[in-house]
Amino acid sequence: MAVSPNMGPASIEGHYDEVISALGVVDEVRKGSAQGFHGYLVACFDDPGLHAAREVANGPVVGIAEAAMHMASFICEGFSIVATGHRNRIILEHLVRAYGMEHKCRKVRTTELAVLDLEVEGSEARNVILEECRRAIAEDHSDCIVLGCAGMADLVDYISRELGVPVVDGVAAGVKMLEGLIGMGLSTSRACGYAYPNLKRYDGEMARFQP
Amino acid sequence: MAVSPNMGPASIEGHYDEVISALGVVDEVRKGSAQGFHGYLVACFDDPGLHAAREVANGPVVGIAEAAMHMASFICEGFSIVATGHRNRIILEHLVRAYGMEHKCRKVRTTELAVLDLEVEGSEARNVILEECRRAIAEDHSDCIVLGCAGMADLVDYISRELGVPVVDGVAAGVKMLEGLIGMGLSTSRACGYAYPNLKRYDGEMARFQP
Amino acid sequence: MAVSPNMGPASIEGHYDEVISALGVVDEVRKGSAQGFHGYLVACFDDPGLHAAREVANGPVVGIAEAAMHMASFICEGFSIVATGHRNRIILEHLVRAYGMEHKCRKVRTTELAVLDLEVEGSEARNVILEECRRAIAEDHSDCIVLGCAGMADLVDYISRELGVPVVDGVAAGVKMLEGLIGMGLSTSRACGYAYPNLKRYDGEMARFQP
Amino acid sequence: MAVSPNMGPASIEGHYDEVISALGVVDEVRKGSAQGFHGYLVACFDDPGLHAAREVANGPVVGIAEAAMHMASFICEGFSIVATGHRNRIILEHLVRAYGMEHKCRKVRTTELAVLDLEVEGSEARNVILEECRRAIAEDHSDCIVLGCAGMADLVDYISRELGVPVVDGVAAGVKMLEGLIGMGLSTSRACGYAYPNLKRYDGEMARFQP
Amino acid sequence: MAVSPNMGPASIEGHYDEVISALGVVDEVRKGSAQGFHGYLVACFDDPGLHAAREVANGPVVGIAEAAMHMASFICEGFSIVATGHRNRIILEHLVRAYGMEHKCRKVRTTELAVLDLEVEGSEARNVILEECRRAIAEDHSDCIVLGCAGMADLVDYISRELGVPVVDGVAAGVKMLEGLIGMGLSTSRACGYAYPNLKRYDGEMARFQP
Amino acid sequence: MAVSPNMGPASIEGHYDEVISALGVVDEVRKGSAQGFHGYLVACFDDPGLHAAREVANGPVVGIAEAAMHMASFICEGFSIVATGHRNRIILEHLVRAYGMEHKCRKVRTTELAVLDLEVEGSEARNVILEECRRAIAEDHSDCIVLGCAGMADLVDYISRELGVPVVDGVAAGVKMLEGLIGMGLSTSRACGYAYPNLKRYDGEMARFQP
Repeated sequence: MAVSPNMGPASIEGHYDEVISALGVVDEVRKGSAQGFHGYLVACFDDPGLHAAREVANGPVVGIAEAAMHMASFICEGFSIVATGHRNRIILEHLVRAYGMEHKCRKVRTTELAVLDLEVEGSEARNVILEECRRAIAEDHSDCIVLGCAGMADLVDYISRELGVPVVDGVAAGVKMLEGLIGMGLSTSRACGYAYPNLKRYDGEMARFQP
Repeated sequence: MAVSPNMGPASIEGHYDEVISALGVVDEVRKGSAQGFHGYLVACFDDPGLHAAREVANGPVVGIAEAAMHMASFICEGFSIVATGHRNRIILEHLVRAYGMEHKCRKVRTTELAVLDLEVEGSEARNVILEECRRAIAEDHSDCIVLGCAGMADLVDYISRELGVPVVDGVAAGVKMLEGLIGMGLSTSRACGYAYPNLKRYDGEMARFQP
Repeated sequence: MAVSPNMGPASIEGHYDEVISALGVVDEVRKGSAQGFHGYLVACFDDPGLHAAREVANGPVVGIAEAAMHMASFICEGFSIVATGHRNRIILEHLVRAYGMEHKCRKVRTTELAVLDLEVEGSEARNVILEECRRAIAEDHSDCIVLGCAGMADLVDYISRELGVPVVDGVAAGVKMLEGLIGMGLSTSRACGYAYPNLKRYDGEMARFQP
Repeated sequence: MAVSPNMGPASIEGHYDEVISALGVVDEVRKGSAQGFHGYLVACFDDPGLHAAREVANGPVVGIAEAAMHMASFICEGFSIVATGHRNRIILEHLVRAYGMEHKCRKVRTTELAVLDLEVEGSEARNVILEECRRAIAEDHSDCIVLGCAGMADLVDYISRELGVPVVDGVAAGVKMLEGLIGMGLSTSRACGYAYPNLKRYDGEMARFQP
Repeated sequence: MAVSPNMGPASIEGHYDEVISALGVVDEVRKGSAQGFHGYLVACFDDPGLHAAREVANGPVVGIAEAAMHMASFICEGFSIVATGHRNRIILEHLVRAYGMEHKCRKVRTTELAVLDLEVEGSEARNVILEECRRAIAEDHSDCIVLGCAGMADLVDYISRELGVPVVDGVAAGVKMLEGLIGMGLSTSRACGYAYPNLKRYDGEMARFQP
Repeated sequence: MAVSPNMGPASIEGHYDEVISALGVVDEVRKGSAQGFHGYLVACFDDPGLHAAREVANGPVVGIAEAAMHMASFICEGFSIVATGHRNRIILEHLVRAYGMEHKCRKVRTTELAVLDLEVEGSEARNVILEECRRAIAEDHSDCIVLGCAGMADLVDYISRELGVPVVDGVAAGVKMLEGLIGMGLSTSRACGYAYPNLKRYDGEMARFQP
């Protein structure tokens, strides 16, 4: 079941949007845990609120950026991430480093596109992305593309067919990782850094987020 | 001028608390920017909301963990961070990595203490911290201590005197870094990843955070 | 369908065994590809012949060590690998490095056990492994165990229940990764380092391995 | 109080110049310590003699390369260092690595300029540097410039205005770091690798450097 | 005494060829050890079977890729490896990483050449290699070339004279490393990961490889 | 031909001694180059003045620490360096990092010994070193010892026999590396960072070091 938090930015571009949207993420995960869902997918390529969600979720939590990178690492010698606006480059580079993917990710490539351009019928977005992927293969020596935005999922087949390399979409990768974890009976360890939040007072507007 | 956000957890322990408190951080920084402050210090050793605050602040923003580690790197061959509860270890280890301090930080050490224990008159907290620092010097070969919690500032002199090594408090370090940056006329670059947030719709409870 | 090559060592311990068994791996994968299987799992924790198998397979190939480590990275702050004989430590440490898992794998732990001890009814193997896992949690601050041998699969539940942390078995993890890749229609990229082997003469005993 | 050692090369370009000038550095620091100065700035971007100076100084010692890089790390997503002659590249790359700045320094850029060209009235040096900085922003995706030579301090405002990004001069950064350290009462730890030199015989021309 | 195994591929290009040729390597090393040779050189730039050979050899074993890279590290600030077909790039990049040469190897460069092209009288191979080396110096800022194929040994003088930088051939480097090790009385440590293979049953075609 | 500079400290312990002794190193190398020697060995385990010597030498220059570590990397899975006084640890750790040996050097171990203790007849030095080596094998899982001081050369056989692992002495290793480089006709590249020093004025006491 996919939900979009009913609070937060219309799209996530940069650290500020990320902080705000993280709140929506943990909110939905808490609701889901109360209802007994089995696992959670954070479906924005910045993986906002991922670690926090792990503390309050009753099952495994997967981010689409981490899922896409890990999945891609099994099928190529090196991939490039192709994403939207330039301001996202640093966030993705930090994720590459955080997930130990420096040896697999040959380059993070960003474009002039805004996230919401991807949803505009008949826009040039599709071709802008394709050309950036083409450069990734020619210049980065990458043999796989990771699409760096949840909104690019419907480009997978098109780009893969045009360029002849595997193309990884984070949402699909995340669903598969979740299915795998749940199927193995695995969930986030409670023994240390992802224990349930300590009980304490939460003040003001945030009172309702008290664990 | 020091402010404590009027919303958020009473102390910050773990990723969930961090996400919630980051909202208070960006809120205060936006208020401060409207009033024309010159710089901002995020005074929790997890550096919550640091990158987001840089996007909306009108001047430099410094986190006390990053300030303490950078400052310490000038005066020692290697330091240990001594912090409170064990669940914070992973967050601090991630910061060490994010700040490029793997070559200087010999170990992150945590204790059984909760953050709020530090404020209890006559508690054992003071000695627990001192003994952990002593082990850091003996076992990690560290020649400097970085105190991993804003609430430990008043232990600097005591520990330094007892152990004969420099002890770095993040709050003091952060103030000095800010003074330095402001004195040099430097502030966060707007040219790329820390540009002001893109204008867009923010929904629901988060509407008032719209950039 | 699980096959065990009909040539090679009875168990795989060290680099020499690995080289010999890699031949059996590529042999079986070539047979499987001729029969049209959809994917391949290399079910020894040294991942012998993994990269070579990718060149000749008609579908994705997964190693159980890489699968276990990647899967574990989604559910813990840090894991220890607990394996058999000490001579395997260096091979596993090389894999940790090759898979970019230095930030997640806190320690490779080996025991006095030989691989075949695991199959002996009523042996002490079970307890030796459990005690090493217990030390991993206490001394390495790991909050997850990766079992470093295909022969330990039936210990997952026992150890997990005794120690209260998730325990990851590579065979199960590998099956899930394969299912995920196949489900997404992904297979090894042919664009570069994993292209089908160049056609050329193979001499002597190896003539039948000619691509 | 700024001093220039009365012995050593007229400018510092390469490892040989560095070794010779390091002697002047420790000589001045020893004189200063005898006179009771509070801190020391090594004002050449190769940081010659920095570690040795720490052993004999009575207060903190800061190098301008380390100060500039650390200071820059607080205000940008990534910086390029723009320096003089090509032979200096490797020394600066080693410093980037030694200071843990691989994640922040996107490129070390050198030019055909000699250090002393910077002091020639009406030379092209100013423009050569500016154009290299422009390339740093366009090609390296850097959003901040670190000037890699003490002689470039007067270009800070010009370049910053022309390119619209923060520009960091090491001398100014070093002064601020020193003020910060001294203000916090911090100095080099004596507990381990920066202890005062062991007493022993010094022979020949070097006799007067005996600790 | 140089031997070429009488089984295996005519040239080694890619992981599959590597696995097959590794068998020939360990076979020859076992024969040599029975005859009492003093040391062994694996003379293919992929270093196939190197670690396995160390387990069964009665003296030190050196690979030409590792020898060339280590030797080059003593005489330059940074080298580029210039090799044959593009499919070898990933194998060489893995070796760079495995040997800790990321700080010295500025780039792995491959060409359209097949290994066997190098042996064709009057081919363009010589010039293709030279031009790639020229680009390495101009674009990578390398000041040394490591030739990435055993078949390039006779190009050393030509390229070195044309480009004015040292050029390192792995076979010559390997011989020198072996002479050095043997001269010092050093051989592979038996204490841990390179102990003689464990005794056990080997099945089928591989029975004759039983340790 | 071995020379000991007629100026500088009686032994080298720490950064200050290193700076002073580097001057003696470059002085002797310049004299040697005028006389036409073929290569140079810097025979102190801190490798003082190594890079500078490369700029002024007429042949290859090798440091005993770099030679020992590289040589050891061919014969073991991991080594420990066992050295004299604790203040040398940080210098050796920096060298390990600078030479890309983090993956091979499992630990730098220092002892209470002063360098000159090694020369005292009948001292306990021999046993102190042996016991530290024993701990290296037991606790670090090292299967090789690198002796971290030129003055330990005569302990090689004793320790190797007692502990059953290869023991590497830097002086012997350095001689072999030099012989190898000279035999291959290789010397330091002049193309970039190790070019001969730029001509310029040298002042004061240092005038005679003018290139």
